[in-house]
Amino acid sequence: MPLLVVGSVGIDTVETPHGKAQDVLGGSAVYFSWAASFFVPVRLVSVVGSDFPERYRDDLSTKDIDMTGLEVRDGKTFRWSGQYKDTMHVAETLSVDLNVFGQFAPNVPEQFRDSRFVFLANGLPTLQMEVLDQMNGPAFVAADTMNHWISDMKPELLKVLKRVDGFILNDAEARQLTEEHNLIKAARALQEMGPSYVIIKKGEHGSLLVSEEGFCLVPGYPTEHVKDPTGAGDTFAGGTMGYLAKTGTVNVENMRQAIIYGTVLASFNVEGFSIERLKQIDMADLESRRSHFASMVKF
Amino acid sequence: MPLLVVGSVGIDTVETPHGKAQDVLGGSAVYFSWAASFFVPVRLVSVVGSDFPERYRDDLSTKDIDMTGLEVRDGKTFRWSGQYKDTMHVAETLSVDLNVFGQFAPNVPEQFRDSRFVFLANGLPTLQMEVLDQMNGPAFVAADTMNHWISDMKPELLKVLKRVDGFILNDAEARQLTEEHNLIKAARALQEMGPSYVIIKKGEHGSLLVSEEGFCLVPGYPTEHVKDPTGAGDTFAGGTMGYLAKTGTVNVENMRQAIIYGTVLASFNVEGFSIERLKQIDMADLESRRSHFASMVKF
Repeated sequence: MPLLVVGSVGIDTVETPHGKAQDVLGGSAVYFSWAASFFVPVRLVSVVGSDFPERYRDDLSTKDIDMTGLEVRDGKTFRWSGQYKDTMHVAETLSVDLNVFGQFAPNVPEQFRDSRFVFLANGLPTLQMEVLDQMNGPAFVAADTMNHWISDMKPELLKVLKRVDGFILNDAEARQLTEEHNLIKAARALQEMGPSYVIIKKGEHGSLLVSEEGFCLVPGYPTEHVKDPTGAGDTFAGGTMGYLAKTGTVNVENMRQAIIYGTVLASFNVEGFSIERLKQIDMADLESRRSHFASMVKF
Repeated sequence: MPLLVVGSVGIDTVETPHGKAQDVLGGSAVYFSWAASFFVPVRLVSVVGSDFPERYRDDLSTKDIDMTGLEVRDGKTFRWSGQYKDTMHVAETLSVDLNVFGQFAPNVPEQFRDSRFVFLANGLPTLQMEVLDQMNGPAFVAADTMNHWISDMKPELLKVLKRVDGFILNDAEARQLTEEHNLIKAARALQEMGPSYVIIKKGEHGSLLVSEEGFCLVPGYPTEHVKDPTGAGDTFAGGTMGYLAKTGTVNVENMRQAIIYGTVLASFNVEGFSIERLKQIDMADLESRRSHFASMVKF
């Protein structure tokens, strides 16, 4: 089943202890789409400026990503620059220029409105809500968020959560939103806010799914060569949602398999800047690492 | 096969956000022995003072723990007091009185020297070496350590590592000893120092086994009710070594099962102060939680 994603498409400049990448393709919807397109056709809704390089559009068009919903506005594309130091746990943002993304009013193309699976990447809760209002009864909607919206737009975020089935967020965000340090208790509190499936990402330590049917624990894939963590969370979400949309069924067992694929895709992503590593891999690489991962985790 | 442990037996006073326990039984060899005794008879080598309460000796004697090697010296028993705040990740030591443990010169009883499985709990590397010198060719020796010995007695610690088969330590210690942040690289570097099996504990995030035969990833058990983390690492090591000694065979598959038991035992331990929670559980409780854990992790 086709999968719709609404999020950012941008141009990043990233520096890590392993090098620097200048003006490379980035944005939540880019990482998400690339990862999800391993499994299903992806419908992308976002906005770029008239300066958006043709070569990046060409990159995306090598995958099954429908860019009908990629609006081009007069002005500049969203730009982010950041730096990861030493342990590479947290990005230090050096600059953000929202540019045309600052006026983004998501307009879901008519032919996308029947999408059964929908992902609302991190963004203003009010915009996430606008997207939901345009959809024709999707089967499964998942959302991401970030610290800014939790502190500055909590009432709006809570309204969104009432309308989503899945919530994919990191441990710090889960703790901030619930004011609960224990992640199991935090996940339960998040379920109370609406979503049946809560996936808490713990970076290199893997992730945790809490649902009414039970828990899943998925460790992180032990990656030795972390070059740039940018986009890991969105790649994870893309792999997860892509696999779910492919199977068309949401239950805890499918979700577990989905999270494993998301984890493996994210482990590839961090091995390169931007989408450079994701561009190198095919389904066989993905399955091969998935098997290796399974051999390390079998109980 | 009987399992020998050399480590501390002490009296702890611990305060956490969930309460305070005054003058309770503690020490690495206590937690280790209790956990290991679920699987095999344990031979304990340690020292206490003449003030060591009879009731604590009675507690230990309810389990299959041979205390022939528990020396009683004139003087006071080792005492530690500490506090865990908020997130309970790190204990703040309020006071340490080594007392008779400061003069501990481990003397392994003659009838213990044939032990096939040996655990050297955290302690002076020179004392760990003295124990090894007294053993008659054990099949599998594992050791723990801590930040003090890494910074102050690194050459002595490196000598011990050349003579052990397994090394069980936490992530911070692994990073400190190898000066490598990436835990996979750190584990590989530790293998170079001697031990074939390196187990890195990541607290609530589980653990990682690196061996020549391959990796194992075991997530943490998602415990909601963490009352006191004291002894979690030694309980983990006890469960792990106990299961290994029971099977009598060391390979990556046995080690994986062993680590799972260690993880589950540690998850019980943190639910109470001292050994109070461990005292309440039997093998059926352990197996029941183990099954539940496996259902959360199956790939």
